[in-house]
Amino acid sequence: MVKGGDVTGPGNTPSIYDQGLDKGPANYAPLSPIGFLERAAGIYPEKTAIIHGDMRFTYREFYDRARRLASALSAHGIGYGDTVSIMAFNVPPVLEAHYGVPMIGAVLNTLNIRLDAEAIAFILDHAETKVLITDREFSNTIKKALEQSNAKPLVIDIDDPLCDGGELLGEMSYETFIALGDPEFGWLPPEDEWQAISLNYTSGTTGNPKGVVYHHRGAYLSAMGNALVFGVSSQSVFLWTVPMFHCNGWTFPWALTAVGGTHVCLRRVDPALIFPAIQAHGVSHMCGAPIVLTMLIHSPEAANVKLNHTVELATGGSAPPSAVISAMEAIGFRITHLYGLTEVYGPATFCAWQDSWDALPRDAQTTRMARQGVIYPMVQGMKVGDPDTLEPAPADGETVGEIFLRGNSIMSGYLKNLDATERALKGGWFHSGDLAVRHPDGYIEIKDRSKDIIISGGENISSIEVEEILYRHPDIMEAAVVAKPDEKWGESPCAFVTLRPGLDQLSSDDVIGWCRENMAHYKCPKKVVFGELPKTSTGKIQKFILRDRALEA
Amino acid sequence: MVKGGDVTGPGNTPSIYDQGLDKGPANYAPLSPIGFLERAAGIYPEKTAIIHGDMRFTYREFYDRARRLASALSAHGIGYGDTVSIMAFNVPPVLEAHYGVPMIGAVLNTLNIRLDAEAIAFILDHAETKVLITDREFSNTIKKALEQSNAKPLVIDIDDPLCDGGELLGEMSYETFIALGDPEFGWLPPEDEWQAISLNYTSGTTGNPKGVVYHHRGAYLSAMGNALVFGVSSQSVFLWTVPMFHCNGWTFPWALTAVGGTHVCLRRVDPALIFPAIQAHGVSHMCGAPIVLTMLIHSPEAANVKLNHTVELATGGSAPPSAVISAMEAIGFRITHLYGLTEVYGPATFCAWQDSWDALPRDAQTTRMARQGVIYPMVQGMKVGDPDTLEPAPADGETVGEIFLRGNSIMSGYLKNLDATERALKGGWFHSGDLAVRHPDGYIEIKDRSKDIIISGGENISSIEVEEILYRHPDIMEAAVVAKPDEKWGESPCAFVTLRPGLDQLSSDDVIGWCRENMAHYKCPKKVVFGELPKTSTGKIQKFILRDRALEA
Repeated sequence: MVKGGDVTGPGNTPSIYDQGLDKGPANYAPLSPIGFLERAAGIYPEKTAIIHGDMRFTYREFYDRARRLASALSAHGIGYGDTVSIMAFNVPPVLEAHYGVPMIGAVLNTLNIRLDAEAIAFILDHAETKVLITDREFSNTIKKALEQSNAKPLVIDIDDPLCDGGELLGEMSYETFIALGDPEFGWLPPEDEWQAISLNYTSGTTGNPKGVVYHHRGAYLSAMGNALVFGVSSQSVFLWTVPMFHCNGWTFPWALTAVGGTHVCLRRVDPALIFPAIQAHGVSHMCGAPIVLTMLIHSPEAANVKLNHTVELATGGSAPPSAVISAMEAIGFRITHLYGLTEVYGPATFCAWQDSWDALPRDAQTTRMARQGVIYPMVQGMKVGDPDTLEPAPADGETVGEIFLRGNSIMSGYLKNLDATERALKGGWFHSGDLAVRHPDGYIEIKDRSKDIIISGGENISSIEVEEILYRHPDIMEAAVVAKPDEKWGESPCAFVTLRPGLDQLSSDDVIGWCRENMAHYKCPKKVVFGELPKTSTGKIQKFILRDRALEA
Repeated sequence: MVKGGDVTGPGNTPSIYDQGLDKGPANYAPLSPIGFLERAAGIYPEKTAIIHGDMRFTYREFYDRARRLASALSAHGIGYGDTVSIMAFNVPPVLEAHYGVPMIGAVLNTLNIRLDAEAIAFILDHAETKVLITDREFSNTIKKALEQSNAKPLVIDIDDPLCDGGELLGEMSYETFIALGDPEFGWLPPEDEWQAISLNYTSGTTGNPKGVVYHHRGAYLSAMGNALVFGVSSQSVFLWTVPMFHCNGWTFPWALTAVGGTHVCLRRVDPALIFPAIQAHGVSHMCGAPIVLTMLIHSPEAANVKLNHTVELATGGSAPPSAVISAMEAIGFRITHLYGLTEVYGPATFCAWQDSWDALPRDAQTTRMARQGVIYPMVQGMKVGDPDTLEPAPADGETVGEIFLRGNSIMSGYLKNLDATERALKGGWFHSGDLAVRHPDGYIEIKDRSKDIIISGGENISSIEVEEILYRHPDIMEAAVVAKPDEKWGESPCAFVTLRPGLDQLSSDDVIGWCRENMAHYKCPKKVVFGELPKTSTGKIQKFILRDRALEA
């Protein structure tokens, strides 16, 4: 057998293929998702592209409105490298902004609607926002933010007929603004596919948020990857349960348009709206954090629901507890588990189903499905390894390491934050900060965020593993486990649980007993606190607040 | 309304997004389809990747064999920019070569198996072939070609157990060769995504064939586009009815591997093999020229076949006649019509189904389906326009123009043929040489190759339009119409027809009468010739031969 002899790297002598075969306008175009809308409008001009309440926009109208927006922004002096921020629910203007803003070389900054005025003001300043498009429902926060901010953006109000609160703050309404624009506006694709397309601030649990910059190439490739992995087509009807301000809606404003599917907008994630929308519009695909699944299952509506068609539901952000997967599938959803972060355009791995799992008992199946899985097609590489040396850990299902990712769907960096960018991309890999094991089958499974691991008596305890046991208790709706300082053990697990509505019979001892029946005793919570859990604006449980509370618990 | 004000192009002043957000190994990787196999082997190591007769290779084995091939080639001094030619049916070594060859920076040249020794010798010389991998079935042709050629490649024999003819010509068998290679060979992705990955010679009806060069970026994007448009997934089972030497099998050696589907190999396109393979392996997807469809319909096997599951069949190369679509769908196939050329990595447009067609009568549906349609997601633009000025023709369904394409799935050019490359890519668009109309709905419909149009009394007659009428005759299996010099009209249509097996009652007058009943009289053939039609190695009817015959008819 020939050993060694690996391919030689740089310095290949030019060959016959290096002559007269150059790039040119015929055979090279910078990758950009903007063209997806032009193409969809060309192929499906009269097809319903967007549903919002009683409103319907065809693909022709969607494209016209995006071009009007681009034209109106351009007429106001906005262009290359300018930031356009938008504060809104999942309404049509946000979809339109995913095209209209980059059409003029500007950068779309979707704001997290749950942020307070101070955080918004910080972002407007940091992003040097030139235009702020804002839904009237957020006028209180935005008014304060604008007072605090040094940026003095042009303010445009989304005056959504489905909203009756708030006030109008800006120069004019969004509809008036785009009515001034040209629906035939001659936009240009980016000259360089590395050009920035969007800016997404992390919901950082401490310190100032960091501005994650996406480029056209990455947005195009992520959208193609999402379309392929989630299996969307022109027949797909996508319900907007994942916020578009979260990693640009996991790139689906682009991915679904690439295939010519139908977007169903939604002002809020409310089971009383979601179940009827699924039936009324024949929703085929939706996404959301596990908290959305939990909310759907425990809603009064769920008791009577049995969907008349299968709805593909991709979930990520944290692992869906087995009990949640089972309950959702019983109603008629099919769950795909994705994993990603803002820094990697949303999903980067998915838990690919294996034929061999067909024969497993249901419990074993849902346990497998809770793994973060394997890489997306547009991800170049993933490893689980030492946080400092990046040395890969063995794929033994036990050795915990940090998840590293590399490839074309990794951010270009953090805006105006070279130090953080260098730290995040050090050694040629993106450092996720998530701790995982790699199973012998290659699937990764997250054990914790690096800062969420509990070290008790020198042993690492995965807070997620304890939470998984808690979620299996029939009376527990939500659970989070954090470290509490412990004189003897250094740290010990402290559990925060929310009971299902109407149930309040469970005691601390019951909960601890349940854990002791189901896992190693050293991993069991020593303390249990009942009540609602604090969440970030994207629905993630805020463990840093719980850690503070644990100090006093 | 704001008019004008289009986006300014070059010369944008640097913005905050132009600082500290650079490419690096973490967030940039050259696009290449080679990684699809590494990924599939990581996710589905034990899944059947390749079926060939009684042979089965898992994805782990597929990847190991590809790396062994790369390693063995490298050990023989093959590397960057070297051409590796392969002459074979759709057997596993060709799939492996789609990965093993580019893994070392070499270029894969799949030879058209129907070429004669002279043409093969020309290609071996022109491509400067360093290694020739050849199936024993072609030993006669290859032996002669090697005698005529100045290239003295290393010759490796594919000694397929499913072949018992021919002789072994080379230094060793393919299996012996790759057994010498290292299954853990450390291959490297290309440093530049523009690097050549494959070389496909056009089957040029006249003159020497031209060598079309594909690059890694285009192969990656075309494969992703094909996977998306044809809807393949890890559940897909792909029957290899389209030759892998034809535009690299329309990029499916890469596309199907990207999703982890199963490849079913096939030594020849024979209905007696195809129908049983569909049932035995649960084939879900296959591709082929319309001639394959015609062959399937008219085979004795078809009479008794009713598939127990729908098989997606993508066809292209020429428009499928309506009657053929209907007959295929009656058996259980679902037809998608694609259009493309070697120069654009195979498919570049597809006839997207419109919801509004659901309500049309069957005839109107199949007429629509015979249109070449709309662009793939990875195609940047298409227009139908003046062959010289490139001025777009109106989308009126009547004005004929040449089809122009541009985007990332256009060849880098013709190898060692700068003149032809410049002509083909002139004006920033690829000149297809196909003449089409654009319908008001944006769909294109090919009327003819530029050289196949018949000009009679100053009127253009589309040979395809006449053929479509001929195909509708129940006794006609195949038809081709070419120009015959005519003293009065300049040219007149001359029809060549093959009758369905066992039928020989039809006269010239019957055929002409049928045409006169169904179309404008000036378009009807003046002469009808019965018999078999000459075909190119890819199953295309050779009209240049028919034009010669028409001179004497």
